[in-house]
Amino acid sequence: MITEEALKADGFRENPFYHCLVAEIFPGPGEPQGPCVVGYGLYYFIYSTWKGRNIYLEDIYVKPEYRGQGIGSKIIKKVAEVALDKGCSQFRLAVLDWNKRAMDLYKALGAQDLTEAEGWHSFCFKGDSMRELAGK
Amino acid sequence: MITEEALKADGFRENPFYHCLVAEIFPGPGEPQGPCVVGYGLYYFIYSTWKGRNIYLEDIYVKPEYRGQGIGSKIIKKVAEVALDKGCSQFRLAVLDWNKRAMDLYKALGAQDLTEAEGWHSFCFKGDSMRELAGK
Repeated sequence: MITEEALKADGFRENPFYHCLVAEIFPGPGEPQGPCVVGYGLYYFIYSTWKGRNIYLEDIYVKPEYRGQGIGSKIIKKVAEVALDKGCSQFRLAVLDWNKRAMDLYKALGAQDLTEAEGWHSFCFKGDSMRELAGK
Repeated sequence: MITEEALKADGFRENPFYHCLVAEIFPGPGEPQGPCVVGYGLYYFIYSTWKGRNIYLEDIYVKPEYRGQGIGSKIIKKVAEVALDKGCSQFRLAVLDWNKRAMDLYKALGAQDLTEAEGWHSFCFKGDSMRELAGK
């Protein structure tokens, strides 16, 4: 599990490993609190030897009590803006097959399921397998 | 399609969008040529909100006449070494489901198929969908 210190060190340095957008709600008149973070989108840049710079949305989250108001879609649209500004030609993300609600949202917004359409599978060497592979 | 200029600009700058390892064959005694590039592995760093820094092998290639000699496995092992050196906890890649030879190799080396095991699907907003999403 990652620590708060590692997240700070990796995201808030000169060449950060990730970038993060936050969704804020401003208090209504008479409400005492300042703006309140209710969601975020964490992304980074990836690269294709066919397409060049792409953007990858690693994680998107909206607090349960603020769902159903289009905040998630706004975060996704903002990531697409950043992608265009940075010269990316694709915007990628991954979703679990049981998360039909998310899959339907992404498809409705125009995304293609590359696993379904082209047969892409994600592979991962974790912990011990990676160390063994490296001979360490 | 990407240009040679874009590949050079994005990979050979201060904060490169990707890194690349090359596999070289040295000429035997009496052979006139210098070392010859016969394969490569192109990777970059990605990030997990659970696991922190990870490495992603975007593309691996070995010239057809040099296949079957373990050069691909050597490239993969070297990427795992880089991953460990850079504090990564996972080494990821994607493979097409018809490429059984590659899938079997990665599994034999200890990788897990996350699409099969956990149901991860890759989604992508391409060109027009991305621009529409960004409202541009």
